[in-house]
Amino acid sequence: MILRSRPSGFRLFFIFRGSVLSQITGVLLVNIALATLVTWTHGDIYNHKITLTAIPFTLIGLPLAIFLGFRNTAAYDRYCEGRKLWGEIVLQNRNFARQCLTLVEHAGPLTPEAGLGDVRVRMIVRTIAFSHALRHLLRDTDAVSELKPLLVPQEWQKISTVSNIPDYLMHQMGRDLRLCMDEKRLDGCLAAAIDMSMSSITAAAAACERIKSTPIPFSYTLMLHRTAYLYCFLLPFGLVDTIGFMTPFVVGIVAYTFFGLDALGDEIEEPFGHSPNDLALDAICRGIEINLRDAIGDKHDLKPLLPVNYCLM
Amino acid sequence: MILRSRPSGFRLFFIFRGSVLSQITGVLLVNIALATLVTWTHGDIYNHKITLTAIPFTLIGLPLAIFLGFRNTAAYDRYCEGRKLWGEIVLQNRNFARQCLTLVEHAGPLTPEAGLGDVRVRMIVRTIAFSHALRHLLRDTDAVSELKPLLVPQEWQKISTVSNIPDYLMHQMGRDLRLCMDEKRLDGCLAAAIDMSMSSITAAAAACERIKSTPIPFSYTLMLHRTAYLYCFLLPFGLVDTIGFMTPFVVGIVAYTFFGLDALGDEIEEPFGHSPNDLALDAICRGIEINLRDAIGDKHDLKPLLPVNYCLM
Amino acid sequence: MILRSRPSGFRLFFIFRGSVLSQITGVLLVNIALATLVTWTHGDIYNHKITLTAIPFTLIGLPLAIFLGFRNTAAYDRYCEGRKLWGEIVLQNRNFARQCLTLVEHAGPLTPEAGLGDVRVRMIVRTIAFSHALRHLLRDTDAVSELKPLLVPQEWQKISTVSNIPDYLMHQMGRDLRLCMDEKRLDGCLAAAIDMSMSSITAAAAACERIKSTPIPFSYTLMLHRTAYLYCFLLPFGLVDTIGFMTPFVVGIVAYTFFGLDALGDEIEEPFGHSPNDLALDAICRGIEINLRDAIGDKHDLKPLLPVNYCLM
Amino acid sequence: MILRSRPSGFRLFFIFRGSVLSQITGVLLVNIALATLVTWTHGDIYNHKITLTAIPFTLIGLPLAIFLGFRNTAAYDRYCEGRKLWGEIVLQNRNFARQCLTLVEHAGPLTPEAGLGDVRVRMIVRTIAFSHALRHLLRDTDAVSELKPLLVPQEWQKISTVSNIPDYLMHQMGRDLRLCMDEKRLDGCLAAAIDMSMSSITAAAAACERIKSTPIPFSYTLMLHRTAYLYCFLLPFGLVDTIGFMTPFVVGIVAYTFFGLDALGDEIEEPFGHSPNDLALDAICRGIEINLRDAIGDKHDLKPLLPVNYCLM
Amino acid sequence: MILRSRPSGFRLFFIFRGSVLSQITGVLLVNIALATLVTWTHGDIYNHKITLTAIPFTLIGLPLAIFLGFRNTAAYDRYCEGRKLWGEIVLQNRNFARQCLTLVEHAGPLTPEAGLGDVRVRMIVRTIAFSHALRHLLRDTDAVSELKPLLVPQEWQKISTVSNIPDYLMHQMGRDLRLCMDEKRLDGCLAAAIDMSMSSITAAAAACERIKSTPIPFSYTLMLHRTAYLYCFLLPFGLVDTIGFMTPFVVGIVAYTFFGLDALGDEIEEPFGHSPNDLALDAICRGIEINLRDAIGDKHDLKPLLPVNYCLM
Repeated sequence: MILRSRPSGFRLFFIFRGSVLSQITGVLLVNIALATLVTWTHGDIYNHKITLTAIPFTLIGLPLAIFLGFRNTAAYDRYCEGRKLWGEIVLQNRNFARQCLTLVEHAGPLTPEAGLGDVRVRMIVRTIAFSHALRHLLRDTDAVSELKPLLVPQEWQKISTVSNIPDYLMHQMGRDLRLCMDEKRLDGCLAAAIDMSMSSITAAAAACERIKSTPIPFSYTLMLHRTAYLYCFLLPFGLVDTIGFMTPFVVGIVAYTFFGLDALGDEIEEPFGHSPNDLALDAICRGIEINLRDAIGDKHDLKPLLPVNYCLM
Repeated sequence: MILRSRPSGFRLFFIFRGSVLSQITGVLLVNIALATLVTWTHGDIYNHKITLTAIPFTLIGLPLAIFLGFRNTAAYDRYCEGRKLWGEIVLQNRNFARQCLTLVEHAGPLTPEAGLGDVRVRMIVRTIAFSHALRHLLRDTDAVSELKPLLVPQEWQKISTVSNIPDYLMHQMGRDLRLCMDEKRLDGCLAAAIDMSMSSITAAAAACERIKSTPIPFSYTLMLHRTAYLYCFLLPFGLVDTIGFMTPFVVGIVAYTFFGLDALGDEIEEPFGHSPNDLALDAICRGIEINLRDAIGDKHDLKPLLPVNYCLM
Repeated sequence: MILRSRPSGFRLFFIFRGSVLSQITGVLLVNIALATLVTWTHGDIYNHKITLTAIPFTLIGLPLAIFLGFRNTAAYDRYCEGRKLWGEIVLQNRNFARQCLTLVEHAGPLTPEAGLGDVRVRMIVRTIAFSHALRHLLRDTDAVSELKPLLVPQEWQKISTVSNIPDYLMHQMGRDLRLCMDEKRLDGCLAAAIDMSMSSITAAAAACERIKSTPIPFSYTLMLHRTAYLYCFLLPFGLVDTIGFMTPFVVGIVAYTFFGLDALGDEIEEPFGHSPNDLALDAICRGIEINLRDAIGDKHDLKPLLPVNYCLM
Repeated sequence: MILRSRPSGFRLFFIFRGSVLSQITGVLLVNIALATLVTWTHGDIYNHKITLTAIPFTLIGLPLAIFLGFRNTAAYDRYCEGRKLWGEIVLQNRNFARQCLTLVEHAGPLTPEAGLGDVRVRMIVRTIAFSHALRHLLRDTDAVSELKPLLVPQEWQKISTVSNIPDYLMHQMGRDLRLCMDEKRLDGCLAAAIDMSMSSITAAAAACERIKSTPIPFSYTLMLHRTAYLYCFLLPFGLVDTIGFMTPFVVGIVAYTFFGLDALGDEIEEPFGHSPNDLALDAICRGIEINLRDAIGDKHDLKPLLPVNYCLM
Repeated sequence: MILRSRPSGFRLFFIFRGSVLSQITGVLLVNIALATLVTWTHGDIYNHKITLTAIPFTLIGLPLAIFLGFRNTAAYDRYCEGRKLWGEIVLQNRNFARQCLTLVEHAGPLTPEAGLGDVRVRMIVRTIAFSHALRHLLRDTDAVSELKPLLVPQEWQKISTVSNIPDYLMHQMGRDLRLCMDEKRLDGCLAAAIDMSMSSITAAAAACERIKSTPIPFSYTLMLHRTAYLYCFLLPFGLVDTIGFMTPFVVGIVAYTFFGLDALGDEIEEPFGHSPNDLALDAICRGIEINLRDAIGDKHDLKPLLPVNYCLM
């Protein structure tokens, strides 16, 4: 996620980090080169004058606007939903921690020495592990090593063998909840309340997996790309008779906005990746870990992550 | 559901799988042939010059844009809702399994030998059956044979006689819940929590049935088709005087986007079918089965489904 | 609700059932006649040439597009909300039936002989009555005769005297719930769960009443109609100088889409009526009745309603 | 709220009630007068010909369409939200009444003589008072006199001294709930269920207050007005060279739609007022009172409010 | 937040407070100056005539409209969400106060002398502190001094050391809830209900933090700005040949709307700041404090905040 204040005025034109220019440089240059060639030859190819006035572009512009507007909104909705889901995870983790600490009847206050032996600490630290595991799952990276200090040994050994680590952790959570009930430290109503927080965390995780596994239907992407390409590459023929040597410049602007909007859509459509406009999952997970470690009174020296080169991962 | 990374640049134009080109080839060819004919005759039919400038198309473009944009959004919303509902089913199945395993008081741990005789196993395996049954219901295929290993014999015999199998299974679930309460393995509060998960699964299933049984009002489809057809088939007369021999080409592009958008809308409007852009219900149900069998410690050798020729069913 | 598969190609133009053509034939013919007259006279009225180029129509097109798009979306939202609310009623009825049958402690299994004397049967059959009553309320038809076999005699006599039958039935439901609690067949938590299902049914019914009693603000409808009428009736003057004898044809297409969209909006804006594009409430209520009668093991010979002449009521 | 069926055809043009014409007559006449003047002088002012073709209007039309569409949607959303909130109040009042009558254990049936001395009656009648008080709060009118028969004397004396009457009434409701619990007429679970209904009513009331106290940001309104005014007042200069003596007519139509849409937005943006397109709060509150008085078996002769001159207040 | 009634007619043009004119004066003047220069030289730069008809602007207008409309909606959604979240905080605080006062069993009525020693008062006053702390967190200002009278001394000393004050306060709330349960003043079901209100407050706070920490993706802002700048600065070249000396005037209007919409989006996108169109958090927190102090019968002389110079902070 790119975090920077907006520079004013003409300095806007000299920012590259966070613009999507790097992804579209190639096709943009080809397009401008074509426009220059068309301008040079006045639209003649082998002595055949290609006449395209602005009218076809107004007509094709209609479905193109529908495609672009639609896909843009759909991609941004996915981005926002992804962000909200992680916000939900942050929140439910806080609620869950508060509930573990206050609703579970306890013999004495938390002591740092007890560590994962205290069921309340074990459950809270396991939600930290849950967040990290989910992040790795969504980014297709390996979670096992990072989770070692957060789980009891037998749990940690188990996770390398299961297909869905967050799901497994949540089952373990359920087992600890059962334990509390068996030990009469929790009555049914309060257990149901804690169980509801667990369901909410599971829900957010499942929705993240859904976003990851279900892209916007491929046919949209395909039709949008095709239409945008045809539009931009035919555009010089439509403009050259009217605006002459300004053609490559105008084509460049139009192509920049179309290809740029398209490339940006590609980035945020799958918001859990590593590209600059994706969500800052590392920072969110760090924030969860700090929150929860503070809640159990753990001494730690974790600091919130800060943007590097305006970019927070 | 089509899963493939987007090919870059001009390779985009040589993808057929997942484009909707196959559905619209016929009408597209007729349209281009007409445009060619019009170009050839310069718009004269029996010596009557049909004069249509671009203006009528700008005017008709207005309601057409409203129709297309509206229907596209409506169809995609149905697709997304369908996907979310199945995501909800996946999720609530996980929650339900966790609750069965942890909230129901049990004499001992799960043993594979007990099989469907153990009420916890029976309930969890029945949710697997529920998913499969719902999928078959939505796709109008026969569920009975697939459900045999997942149900106790008398239940399985019953399902061929009931009108709505998922609904019947949920009633059986309720009966088992009652059983647990009668055996004092569950107090009222926890039973209410489990009952709420069951209600959520039922809710998602009912919403899927609603989507299946209530199409977008037929009149929209009809008006959209008529307007799009008239627009595309009249277009050559409007363009031929301005852009000459480029007419068939431009008409082809416009018609491709309009008919394509329309055909795609048809596909995803009813997202539970078997066409390439529909939801991958087979894969989702397989995922549920793997999840839940893992949860009850069942030894199985099910693998997640993989896309075949980029297409996940 | 019209249920038919989309005919392909040019057969589209010969469908009348489900098109809104019948509602707009009059105004469309007047409009085309005017356009023909204008073409004949070349736009001269009493030797005053009315000059209107396409420009005014582009300008008026702006607010018209906003009106049309807005009203279309607003009307469709009402339609979808109406459908979802009835989906919710279907669902909550199923949940409610499951809860009555399983959460209420019972001495023995359901027997057909007990009939409405068994509180579980009485409550479930009363929800069938609730659906029918709500349907009649929304359609301004008389519910009393249809409800006779579904209620105990004194209840049935009472309903002809109350202002809101569904509301009264829900109060009776509450009384039976109280009865179960007094007889200790239900503890507080489970009663709260059943009460929540009743609240959900009441909520959906209240929302249906809200949709029925609150139309889209009349001023929108008025402004939209006026603008659309002015647009279409002035259009011939704007087109005749450019496209000559094609004017009536183009005016006909534009007017068909505008008036058609408007008439369709009128139909689905109030989705509980009897027009072809309205919701199939008869079929939904029949479905509920079959579901619930199956649930209580009642022998019946009800069949789901089928479309007549493509139209499901 | 205006309730009338849509008149067909040309009678549409002779409706004034419910059109927003009265609010915009002034500015519309000025605009048409200017257009007439411009037509008369052919756009010359002191011998300087003001040349504005249609092009600037197409360009300004772009942001104007965004403004108008946006504000229209935002205003209508507020209107719909307001309506839904009152629907929620209606609903939760019904649920609350059902819960009071059935979940609270009672010694005997309701008797009319007991009046507000019976806690169930007192709570239900107080919700009637709540609705009236909220309506008065939203409309900045005085609630005190209307509430006298609905509250016990000491409560009624108190309300003239509190800042937020509905909030105070809800606290009193909480006190009565506590009373029921202290008298063991309600267990914790059922009290929580009733408390949830009270929270829902409070939620709807708080959301109404939010809508009232937070208008659409003033800057939007300001920019929209300025752009629309400039557009309409400059329009004659852009049209006069093309369409001559039709200019005032076309300007009149365009201005009517723009100013009308704007004025309508103003009305429904704050949906709790007294203008014709606002919500019929009087009728809704009357409906609640009839519902709840029926529920407690009170003899009353209240009738639902009916529209006066097509307008329901 | 700017609160003023809309002035009518031409007085609209002489309002500066609340318009965003001050933020965009610079760029607007540069743009108009350029337009004047271009008009003066008829678009010649060093004897090279820059020919740009209106066509390129129609084409660039397409993506620009998508960008502007999208960003405008996205920014306004954030604004509305922010407002709703604070509405939720207001509401849940009221609910929470009602629950504390009525669901917690108490020996006697509230007495002003008890002060924070009474757990009910302590919890309610702490929610006041919570609101203030959240406001300061969202505005990056210092909360510590303002919270002193609202917390018990040891809590107040602690807050200067914690990273997230609202989160800490909520944990303290949980501790007091535990206390009530340990003292048997609350059974499990009612504790769960109060805990749910606390979760709702935490949820709203977490969502506010999410809005603050996650801006609209920077690339959108960047592309929008670039496109709008290019559009407005090239516009004089496109208009000068058609409308001559009116060019600077029309360019001024177009630029005002584009830059103004953009600047307004910047303001409301982050709705918790101090700019005139931001939310009136000071007034909301004051309102909460008055509500809750009234609820516990505290004598205070707080007054609701009033707008200063039409602006409520």
